[in-house]
Amino acid sequence: MLARILPRLRGAAPLLGPGDDAAMIAAPGGAFVITVDTLVENQDFRLHWPSGFESSGFDVGWKSAAQNLSDINAMGAYATAAVISLTLPHSTPVRWVEELAEGFSAAVRELGALDCSIAGGDLGRGSEVSITAAVTGALPTGKPILRSGAKPSDIVAVNGVLGVAAAGLALLDSTLPAADWTEAEAGIVQGQRRPKPPLHAGPEAARAGATAMMDLSDGLLKDGQRMATASGANVCIERGALLNDIERLEPISNALGCDPLPWVLAGGEDHGLLATFPAEADLPPGFRPVGVVQALEPGESNPKVYFDGLAQGASIGYDHFEG
Amino acid sequence: MLARILPRLRGAAPLLGPGDDAAMIAAPGGAFVITVDTLVENQDFRLHWPSGFESSGFDVGWKSAAQNLSDINAMGAYATAAVISLTLPHSTPVRWVEELAEGFSAAVRELGALDCSIAGGDLGRGSEVSITAAVTGALPTGKPILRSGAKPSDIVAVNGVLGVAAAGLALLDSTLPAADWTEAEAGIVQGQRRPKPPLHAGPEAARAGATAMMDLSDGLLKDGQRMATASGANVCIERGALLNDIERLEPISNALGCDPLPWVLAGGEDHGLLATFPAEADLPPGFRPVGVVQALEPGESNPKVYFDGLAQGASIGYDHFEG
Repeated sequence: MLARILPRLRGAAPLLGPGDDAAMIAAPGGAFVITVDTLVENQDFRLHWPSGFESSGFDVGWKSAAQNLSDINAMGAYATAAVISLTLPHSTPVRWVEELAEGFSAAVRELGALDCSIAGGDLGRGSEVSITAAVTGALPTGKPILRSGAKPSDIVAVNGVLGVAAAGLALLDSTLPAADWTEAEAGIVQGQRRPKPPLHAGPEAARAGATAMMDLSDGLLKDGQRMATASGANVCIERGALLNDIERLEPISNALGCDPLPWVLAGGEDHGLLATFPAEADLPPGFRPVGVVQALEPGESNPKVYFDGLAQGASIGYDHFEG
Repeated sequence: MLARILPRLRGAAPLLGPGDDAAMIAAPGGAFVITVDTLVENQDFRLHWPSGFESSGFDVGWKSAAQNLSDINAMGAYATAAVISLTLPHSTPVRWVEELAEGFSAAVRELGALDCSIAGGDLGRGSEVSITAAVTGALPTGKPILRSGAKPSDIVAVNGVLGVAAAGLALLDSTLPAADWTEAEAGIVQGQRRPKPPLHAGPEAARAGATAMMDLSDGLLKDGQRMATASGANVCIERGALLNDIERLEPISNALGCDPLPWVLAGGEDHGLLATFPAEADLPPGFRPVGVVQALEPGESNPKVYFDGLAQGASIGYDHFEG
């Protein structure tokens, strides 16, 4: 099995690996960042969708790479290595696993993680498909951008799409047959299957003086709430800044008979960046303002995310262990 | 859930983390080593055994830490950080997961990985318990000890027990009721449940000039074969060097009516070290000679592991994807 998979896992060359007990990775600056994420069949992805769509191994591999690379990007870092652990049922076709390896490698390459080696892994049996990747990164500015650094009067900015992955999920989960999707609909589903974190934007934001930054993985409001809580300041989002995001999804919401706004505000898995910059900063390419950071009101003790001046509740966005 | 688990995951302090998109870890010398391993319920561990024994979360957490720390040890490195991804069914009791976190932390501490932080993690749902850990390490000598460096006339040496984990597994899998185990039997089972990789021995072997080193995870002969193949030389093991290992397991083999030798030669999961040293080297503390490295015979093209002068076949030791 490994002999079929390893040639399909391609990236930059590590200092050593895979093949020994551990791989060896360069850490310029004498430090590195590290993240880990798991995708489990029927929890984080489906192989067969109500719409009749079939997810390929390529899609799952791409998504595993993208979500981990996005976490590294959100620190202001660039990826240096990935190690992958795969759990596979006996019934999984070898070709599906080969495609998974190809999808992981394609994401690393096409998203521009050119310094990321695929340095090692582990392969085991289980009753459901599960893929865990740990990805490491290097910090070009020497220091990470945390979610806790947002200051009152900072600009709140976003890089990347909002709500596309959620709208794509709605299409996959719908009874609108995949075979009948328009080109626009198929494009939105593609955004769910193969998210495109803007990988160079994280280090660029760090160089441009971003005060706080995080990955948009669980929706603008929920992730904004996390930034507000970590920073001790309110994160205030303006609807007027999201009109293009809403408009982009209207053909989908019209076809499904629903409101596109919840996708834009609370949809997860887009893997763009939420960042704050000093008011006087020039936003780096790809970032657009969506609001401002404000100090807590007198008497206000819990930092909140506001949408058009209204404080948002706790039950927004996606959380595995909610409820 | 996380609020219950995180306080139980204790280790050294990382430069940053957990709590942001990624953790930040020091990498003295400008490089690090990294490994990843997964344990899956009913594949790599059981919760309920034929003997009536019940595995605790503590045992599973300990084992996950031990096997990853052992891989770092086998590079001649000391662990600097662990990130953990947990997949849990809805039915898993929170207390069991707390124990898992406590077991992981206890292994880090009691095995002596005092520089290892538990830097972050991921928590998700699935139909079976699965724990993946990625562990990083630093190289005190600046270079890793590979499995490919064994040279003809080198001493082959082992640090740690041989066959104990396999004998313990045989007891767990037997119909000998756990309630009736002798103290010696319970001790052997403890070796399976909570293996003790000799963590300081890896860096010590590197400093003492080890030419090759690897983790004994799949049995002496299978791992010896891997070292032989990687090094292009024969690894020759002498039965006379293993008499104490065999004798230690005789009470168990007598109780179960079987031969202890296969445990010593082919039993996995002991997580000791297999290393080679120049013939003139003083073996560092804890290492004992078990054989020698020999050049391939004229006409011999495939390096092999030999036991008492007899070449061993390919089907030795444990491999998830065999057959």
